[in-house]
Amino acid sequence: MPFDPSSLKFDVNGLLPCIAQDHVSGEVLMLAWMNAEAVAKTLETGRVTYWSRSRASFWIKGESSGHVQKLIELRLDCDRDCLLALVEQQGPACHTNRRSCFYTAIRAGEEQILSAPIA
Amino acid sequence: MPFDPSSLKFDVNGLLPCIAQDHVSGEVLMLAWMNAEAVAKTLETGRVTYWSRSRASFWIKGESSGHVQKLIELRLDCDRDCLLALVEQQGPACHTNRRSCFYTAIRAGEEQILSAPIA
Repeated sequence: MPFDPSSLKFDVNGLLPCIAQDHVSGEVLMLAWMNAEAVAKTLETGRVTYWSRSRASFWIKGESSGHVQKLIELRLDCDRDCLLALVEQQGPACHTNRRSCFYTAIRAGEEQILSAPIA
Repeated sequence: MPFDPSSLKFDVNGLLPCIAQDHVSGEVLMLAWMNAEAVAKTLETGRVTYWSRSRASFWIKGESSGHVQKLIELRLDCDRDCLLALVEQQGPACHTNRRSCFYTAIRAGEEQILSAPIA
């Protein structure tokens, strides 16, 4: 079946969440948002492109930082309202300069930082 | 630092997305939503508890299906607006009886089903 980005289920703001996962290690790197056009751009260019809610503009991941996400494969979930991007991540995915945004664990009721910024 | 669920950043509906990942294989199983109370219940009980947007009620994963998610570790992202639950998943996570909800890939512009329901 041909894939049509407009067949996805977007929220009231026209967005859905996209999880970025390292295609080799399986590490979950980040979650950001896409609209239909960002989905189309991601597939066309092979570079993961989100919609920045704070800047209200397209966000080609790594365009300014160089921390590009090359798309390996895009998947959708059973409800068609969430995406999983398998990516090849250049450098850190997180704006704090860590590989993953999920560097804080909750252990015994305390927040514990699991990794330091990449030097 | 002690963790307080109310310190997370919820959307206008009081929800944030939570990614469930198999703690051994790294497979991303599903994404669902939590409010502050669901986060607290998940941590207290060790059973992953979402907020069902369609039913507008707590959803203790596996309560009716038996496909329980035992919490191994809960992590939060740099913006505190998304969670990653490392889980031990009993059976399929997806309501279609597949291990993961992300069983559809987009390859060469076509939707391709990657896995069959568990028999």
